[in-house]
Amino acid sequence: MSEIATQLAGAVGAGNLLTGDAISDDYAHDEALSTPVQKPAYVAKPATAEEVSALLKIAAAEGIPVTARGSGSGLSAAARPVEGGLVVSFERMNSVLEIDDGNHVAVVQPGVTLAELDAKTAEHGLTYPVYPGELSASVGGTVGTNAGGMRAIRYGITRGNVSGLQAVLATGEIVRTGGRMSKISSGYDLTQLIIGSEGTLALVTEVIVKLQPRLPHSATVLAPFDDFEQVMAAVPKIAASGLAPQILEYIDNMTMAAMVYNDKLELGVPAEIRDRTQAYLAVALENRVADRLGEDVEALGELLTELGAIDAYVLEGGAARKLIEAREKAFWNAKAAGADDVIDVVVPRTAMPQFLAKARELAMATGGGAIGCGHAGDGNVHLAIFCKDPDTRAQLLTDIFGYAYELGGAISGEHGLGRTKTKYYAKLEDPAKLDLLRRVKESFDPAGILNPGVLFAQTGK
Amino acid sequence: MSEIATQLAGAVGAGNLLTGDAISDDYAHDEALSTPVQKPAYVAKPATAEEVSALLKIAAAEGIPVTARGSGSGLSAAARPVEGGLVVSFERMNSVLEIDDGNHVAVVQPGVTLAELDAKTAEHGLTYPVYPGELSASVGGTVGTNAGGMRAIRYGITRGNVSGLQAVLATGEIVRTGGRMSKISSGYDLTQLIIGSEGTLALVTEVIVKLQPRLPHSATVLAPFDDFEQVMAAVPKIAASGLAPQILEYIDNMTMAAMVYNDKLELGVPAEIRDRTQAYLAVALENRVADRLGEDVEALGELLTELGAIDAYVLEGGAARKLIEAREKAFWNAKAAGADDVIDVVVPRTAMPQFLAKARELAMATGGGAIGCGHAGDGNVHLAIFCKDPDTRAQLLTDIFGYAYELGGAISGEHGLGRTKTKYYAKLEDPAKLDLLRRVKESFDPAGILNPGVLFAQTGK
Repeated sequence: MSEIATQLAGAVGAGNLLTGDAISDDYAHDEALSTPVQKPAYVAKPATAEEVSALLKIAAAEGIPVTARGSGSGLSAAARPVEGGLVVSFERMNSVLEIDDGNHVAVVQPGVTLAELDAKTAEHGLTYPVYPGELSASVGGTVGTNAGGMRAIRYGITRGNVSGLQAVLATGEIVRTGGRMSKISSGYDLTQLIIGSEGTLALVTEVIVKLQPRLPHSATVLAPFDDFEQVMAAVPKIAASGLAPQILEYIDNMTMAAMVYNDKLELGVPAEIRDRTQAYLAVALENRVADRLGEDVEALGELLTELGAIDAYVLEGGAARKLIEAREKAFWNAKAAGADDVIDVVVPRTAMPQFLAKARELAMATGGGAIGCGHAGDGNVHLAIFCKDPDTRAQLLTDIFGYAYELGGAISGEHGLGRTKTKYYAKLEDPAKLDLLRRVKESFDPAGILNPGVLFAQTGK
Repeated sequence: MSEIATQLAGAVGAGNLLTGDAISDDYAHDEALSTPVQKPAYVAKPATAEEVSALLKIAAAEGIPVTARGSGSGLSAAARPVEGGLVVSFERMNSVLEIDDGNHVAVVQPGVTLAELDAKTAEHGLTYPVYPGELSASVGGTVGTNAGGMRAIRYGITRGNVSGLQAVLATGEIVRTGGRMSKISSGYDLTQLIIGSEGTLALVTEVIVKLQPRLPHSATVLAPFDDFEQVMAAVPKIAASGLAPQILEYIDNMTMAAMVYNDKLELGVPAEIRDRTQAYLAVALENRVADRLGEDVEALGELLTELGAIDAYVLEGGAARKLIEAREKAFWNAKAAGADDVIDVVVPRTAMPQFLAKARELAMATGGGAIGCGHAGDGNVHLAIFCKDPDTRAQLLTDIFGYAYELGGAISGEHGLGRTKTKYYAKLEDPAKLDLLRRVKESFDPAGILNPGVLFAQTGK
């Protein structure tokens, strides 16, 4: 065992350190499509913040790059390690420490999955409403990427649903930020700064998440439209209606066809309507009172047809659940169909038609394609990119992201930049802002050990 | 005119620079009770971000401390200038630039007041839901302090309702953060870092605020309780009920007596009930549909009496509005009653009874007192502190804030630290965290010109 491995084993116990061939391929990647795998030199599985602190002190002293890992379900390779680096895997820090009914928060370790958290909160009639497709995602991972998901239109993203953290700095200090309250104005908000920092500022060892009442009644309405512009014009009207949709998704006709085929969906949409449909809106409502839900579903149906929907189909329990589950799996369908990358650009929602038209045009000009679905209420467009040649694809993505910038948007709405999108960010973002961000990074991580190559293009390191 | 004044006048035009006796007393303070007034050397009134940039370049070159000023309605003296310093007053940057119906945002200049913004958004059937008591507050000021207010229980605080900024760095660069979308995961969230930074990181020159549908029907229920513990035990139950209160305030009996007397409130609470009441809960509901509101008010009344309320009074339109307005003015009542300071400690809401009991005990032990009201759903306790001797008061506040820390709370929920609370923060906060925050500050403001003495205790300057 090398001298460094001995030190790391001392921090977490020999049984919780992997080196060499003992490191399985799982640790060499996440679910990003477009990045080569890379095994780390070490995988450590700490059980406490103190052990994480000990690991970071060794890494800082020895100059070892550190990559945090939750479930490995990320889509931008932020959890893909660096050659010779250390993966800190939070698989053993997987306890829901407390469901605090009085303050409506849960205190959880980063390795807890969203599915586990949902099961625990359900026992209290509460829910953590952040709902990215992948429920095997770890809470720590969703904090790292500032995950969003389908319910963001109603409940917001991770950023709005986390009130405090415990985190270990690159220098080994353990700090607590925020607390069991939603409201603090006492110094800079480190909670917010760490959320979405993709493991580049600190390693999160505990998360305080806000919980909401779990409403008992929900329904989903599916509305096919002839025309994508009409879909997009409908979105602000639905948002302004006061019906407060929990989910407001668009699904283009090709993506819906793939979902129907792969997931054997029975949506009750007749073939002649499917054939003329360019895109669908799926709108979920929820309510505390069953009667109100029924009334709202009716009002929504009327509103949708007024706004140009060909029809509005109320999906019964099973069909609605299957549709949402299929939507969650859209990434896997894209992967199975041979997509070369997935992107999740965000633009002001009124700019979605322009953005989509241009992205498709750019993709088709390369001989490839771009199909997808997205969080219509949030302007968050998920596209599967089909374009085999890496250089052509890099130029295509530069052009697509560049157009998103022109429209006032950003490269990623919820996946993060990771290793796959950082190079575009370095090219497209305002240099004055990048300089500032780099100074902020240095104020946290002077030795540059935390996830080098993520958010900031690597400079010779 | 001094050489520096000539430079500053060059940046904003001679008519928009005040020096010497031309500077009125207004610029020497905000509404904080416990801090001496201090006139600045210069007051500049820029009209554009470019002019702000020019001012900051001069200030950086000459080492002049800069204090941003909105309406001057702050309660912690973050807008009180430094001797020899420059006040950048945003009174001329007071336009609502756009109400964007499609994206449900407004783009506003920092000098716009909340009252003006409310009038403009009302024309579109929308509302900016952040509602601190003082509607003359400027949007820029609310960004600086991360203002909260009564509707935070339903809509969150400033932090959750701002999606983008334009800001001028201490080095003069103009940057844009965020955008007209609620969801971004592309690098550190500078919007969030600047919100609540009290003018110490950058000067905000444009704000993109999120708008919500303006619901047409609302009602307020007032519930007197014999016992403060019951009030506090009721709060999580109401929050969990799914009734989604827009406002959930407690008001102690002395504060209510002052409100009734000063504002001539007619609440319909009989004298024999008033006499036995220790505290009140005021709960406002709102709805899209009038009938639902009526049903919910009834359900709320039942829930309140189940939870121990002596009775529940539904306040009709005028009375409800007057109660909420009187609650907004609680600060002015405290000031008129001779309060020596006002504080707005935040603790986990379940810890409010302990905190209040201890704060009162500590205040009474000095021969003074602590009375108040607060945002019960958020754990945000507003207390008027009566304690004349400054040294005794400083020790009392140290003890009160120290106890808030013990309970997992923070010094301020929404007023900010400003010049009045920073010294306690310097004493009570984790030194490792303070060091980190100072490094973050330096990454933005290497020359230390932005609001020195706020958030960080001054070291020799």
